[in-house]
Amino acid sequence: MNSTDHAPETPTLKIKAFFESAPPLKDAAEIQTKLKEFVDRNSSSGNGKANRVVCVTSGGTTVPLEKRCVRYIDNFSSGHRGSASTEYFLKAGYSVIFLYRRGTCQPFCRSLPDDPLLECFTSTDDSSVQVDPSHAEMVKRAITENRSAVNGGFLLKLPFTTIFEYLQILRMIAVSLRSLGPSAMFYLAAAVSDFYVPWESMTMHKIQSASGPLDMRLAQVPKMLYVLRNEWAPVAFCISFKLETDTDILLGKADMALKKYKMHMVVANELQTRKEEVIVVTEQEKITVRRDTTQPGADVEDPLIKLVVDRHSAYIDA
Amino acid sequence: MNSTDHAPETPTLKIKAFFESAPPLKDAAEIQTKLKEFVDRNSSSGNGKANRVVCVTSGGTTVPLEKRCVRYIDNFSSGHRGSASTEYFLKAGYSVIFLYRRGTCQPFCRSLPDDPLLECFTSTDDSSVQVDPSHAEMVKRAITENRSAVNGGFLLKLPFTTIFEYLQILRMIAVSLRSLGPSAMFYLAAAVSDFYVPWESMTMHKIQSASGPLDMRLAQVPKMLYVLRNEWAPVAFCISFKLETDTDILLGKADMALKKYKMHMVVANELQTRKEEVIVVTEQEKITVRRDTTQPGADVEDPLIKLVVDRHSAYIDA
Repeated sequence: MNSTDHAPETPTLKIKAFFESAPPLKDAAEIQTKLKEFVDRNSSSGNGKANRVVCVTSGGTTVPLEKRCVRYIDNFSSGHRGSASTEYFLKAGYSVIFLYRRGTCQPFCRSLPDDPLLECFTSTDDSSVQVDPSHAEMVKRAITENRSAVNGGFLLKLPFTTIFEYLQILRMIAVSLRSLGPSAMFYLAAAVSDFYVPWESMTMHKIQSASGPLDMRLAQVPKMLYVLRNEWAPVAFCISFKLETDTDILLGKADMALKKYKMHMVVANELQTRKEEVIVVTEQEKITVRRDTTQPGADVEDPLIKLVVDRHSAYIDA
Repeated sequence: MNSTDHAPETPTLKIKAFFESAPPLKDAAEIQTKLKEFVDRNSSSGNGKANRVVCVTSGGTTVPLEKRCVRYIDNFSSGHRGSASTEYFLKAGYSVIFLYRRGTCQPFCRSLPDDPLLECFTSTDDSSVQVDPSHAEMVKRAITENRSAVNGGFLLKLPFTTIFEYLQILRMIAVSLRSLGPSAMFYLAAAVSDFYVPWESMTMHKIQSASGPLDMRLAQVPKMLYVLRNEWAPVAFCISFKLETDTDILLGKADMALKKYKMHMVVANELQTRKEEVIVVTEQEKITVRRDTTQPGADVEDPLIKLVVDRHSAYIDA
């Protein structure tokens, strides 16, 4: 597998080339319809102002290594950050487009076991199904709050698997949210692949393992943050995430992302401590946000979303 | 990343080197206890003969690319084959050790939507949780049959994620099942990685994406089938799977696996048609097994497991 040797130079051209080589999105028309309905419904509230809408991305994207895909490179991400943040955004009165990796953590379901159906329910003799008393509250909350957000039109869930699907849907969302101006926000918590095999240079069939080691050359995914900020959604409030395992380089990289991609905020987090604290980097300051350890079960996303909402308000008023 | 340059020569030495370099299994003691209980319970039935026990492996293994894992290579596998086969083995009176990839399809849950909790349930005003009538039968069946198999001691579920976990647990199972002699079976439907990054040559931190394309060299995973058949479980009945996307090479590769690893059966399947038909390759014959298309919802695993059980009986009696 070879990367394209003569890659185009600017981010815009690179992303154009990426999209042209990507396999077409299967359910594009259906996604478009859902997006239109959602944005229309949220375009004006009683006071004539646009509702605030945030697109939360969550979970990792995959990179297929074969066209008829058997193997792929994946990015570890449970979707915990994105699903928790979605709950706090809804609580703060935002409408949320939750762009999530299939199979990852869903809003309101974070405390449930891996397989809630088999682990939380029993069936009784009179052919009905019953929640185990120990899980009853959690299960009821998950079902009720999810239904209420989805049916009320405050939560639109759109799934992805590959990097190709993710970037194509994100572009559709960005274009749909333009009409909301600064009331729209992008909260990009997904773990997006940075290397991929360009579709046109990808092998059709399963890679054979008969003969010795496998050498792979992966191309860099074009820096989508730049194009999102400059072209797709130039007026929206944009927050990106930087995850590293090496604390020494984390803040430097977060700073670089802020400047290079003109993000309004970068949330820096370290793999081992990411559920305890994050550092919010803006042009003016670096703010450490910690979860309230005096409260059992308190999330770092609670103070984080309060801070984000606060800065978004200032941005809208400016 | 470099593969080990001077790899040991024989499969046994290769797998020994693989295990020595693998990160230790975290819950080894707990798995050992569960296995012991399960095998003891199934070691003799009323007639003094050992119960039949099959280890069904299901879903794909991952290969971490970093020690503090952010990225990994994954093998696409829904776990549908393994979970369906488990149901038919239980129906045929076998006890099943279901060695499955976390998050993949579970026995009795194949027909449920992706997220059964949020998609099949509603909550009512009197603070109870209710199944939607359209899903009631399926949900009840999933919960009842799973509970009955697990609580009855016929089904032991053990999860894995990485290739390191998978091979270590498989070895533990093989050693535990030795006492059952020919009554034990291995039905290896999992999609096992064939390339990996040896743990000792793996980078500690997240691979940086700053500078150009990424070159990777992956080493071959030692051929575990050979060691399973020859050392871990020399008397058990062994069935492996061969999945290809290219029909032209499929049967040749299945034949090779049969001879090279001395499998009793190899189930050959093609990615596009794998839910419709498979070809069972034995030393004597090639049998095409198709699902019964006159029955709505019939699975190819139904006739497949009947054939497997039949051949296993002949093997025990021989």
